[in-house]
Amino acid sequence: MASDQDSREKLLDTATLLFSSQGIAATTVAAVARGAGVTPAMVHYYFKTRDQLIEAVVDERVCLFVNSIWDPIRGDEPPEDMILDIVERMIATTEKMPWMPALWVREVLSDGGQLRERMVQRVPLAKIALFSENVARSQQAGAINPGLEPTLIFISVLGLTMLPLAMARTLKNRPLLPVVNKAALLDKTVLTRHIKALLLSGLALPATALSDAHFDE
Amino acid sequence: MASDQDSREKLLDTATLLFSSQGIAATTVAAVARGAGVTPAMVHYYFKTRDQLIEAVVDERVCLFVNSIWDPIRGDEPPEDMILDIVERMIATTEKMPWMPALWVREVLSDGGQLRERMVQRVPLAKIALFSENVARSQQAGAINPGLEPTLIFISVLGLTMLPLAMARTLKNRPLLPVVNKAALLDKTVLTRHIKALLLSGLALPATALSDAHFDE
Repeated sequence: MASDQDSREKLLDTATLLFSSQGIAATTVAAVARGAGVTPAMVHYYFKTRDQLIEAVVDERVCLFVNSIWDPIRGDEPPEDMILDIVERMIATTEKMPWMPALWVREVLSDGGQLRERMVQRVPLAKIALFSENVARSQQAGAINPGLEPTLIFISVLGLTMLPLAMARTLKNRPLLPVVNKAALLDKTVLTRHIKALLLSGLALPATALSDAHFDE
Repeated sequence: MASDQDSREKLLDTATLLFSSQGIAATTVAAVARGAGVTPAMVHYYFKTRDQLIEAVVDERVCLFVNSIWDPIRGDEPPEDMILDIVERMIATTEKMPWMPALWVREVLSDGGQLRERMVQRVPLAKIALFSENVARSQQAGAINPGLEPTLIFISVLGLTMLPLAMARTLKNRPLLPVVNKAALLDKTVLTRHIKALLLSGLALPATALSDAHFDE
């Protein structure tokens, strides 16, 4: 028989998957119990209220994703490395937590998403400030594209990375657009290379390719 | 008294706004009628079924947005211009149709979004193919960053542009993240410059800035 801890974790995993695939509003406590193979009374035993279940999903699942992205940021690393490492961590962490991009689109990004206010209270403000300051300092030193707005760069990284990850997730089951290169979107190596190349030098030929220096993929 | 055509257009506008702000599933025919100041019977008179109302919103509202983005594409323009012009048109068209980014996030991008299948049937396939071919041709000629995946570039443009537009829309009413530079996100001039700068040369200094100075590294 499963231990208390196992049952609780199973309920959190089930709730997270259902929240991601069908939305929080459409997920009843009864559905979470059914998915985890327990009675609704068991859900109430561990989480008291539906709201406490949602809070636990945020604290013990969603925040694991967010912290895995932000924890390593120091703010004194070369900004290109800092930014490309965030892309890599988003893609790698999504492999382990494949429910995140869809949950983010539906419940954080969407108007009326039920996790938005909860995430506002939990974002690692100090780390995000370090990120923007690092980029701004490098830009003032003339080392980074002066046309960029430092405070918008993280939003650009989010859009470049989380959007295709959210699309890839649903593409596994049904078509999104007949013209989207499904193979490229699902191949994390191709996706990572494309996003890094775009962030490093956009449409322009990379400067490193002009010399015969090592081209970092 | 409003003409038949006026009433029908009013109903379409009302439905589009409600679909965008609260989602299609949560929008009843009664709510659309109430919002437009008519009886539910009037909605049925113009659109017969709820499904026909949704189809009309797609054909006569959402497709206006999509076509305004894609119609000007010829496929033989310089690819940088083609791509930056798409960004400009997305931002300019959103000024006229501010409901689009949120509707896109909720009903096209989200898992289970009610417009996804409908949009799959309506995307301008020929134009999107021209777009990818133009980029691929230029890349093969050595004029564009070889690290990019041509079939993923439009998805990158979508992420870079529609994501901040969707965030900006909801920021008007309440906070998204305390650390997001609200002013930069809401100022279309700043947003446009940032996205274009990123697409043209990423984090790297633009080539034109280097041409005056001697080329180092």
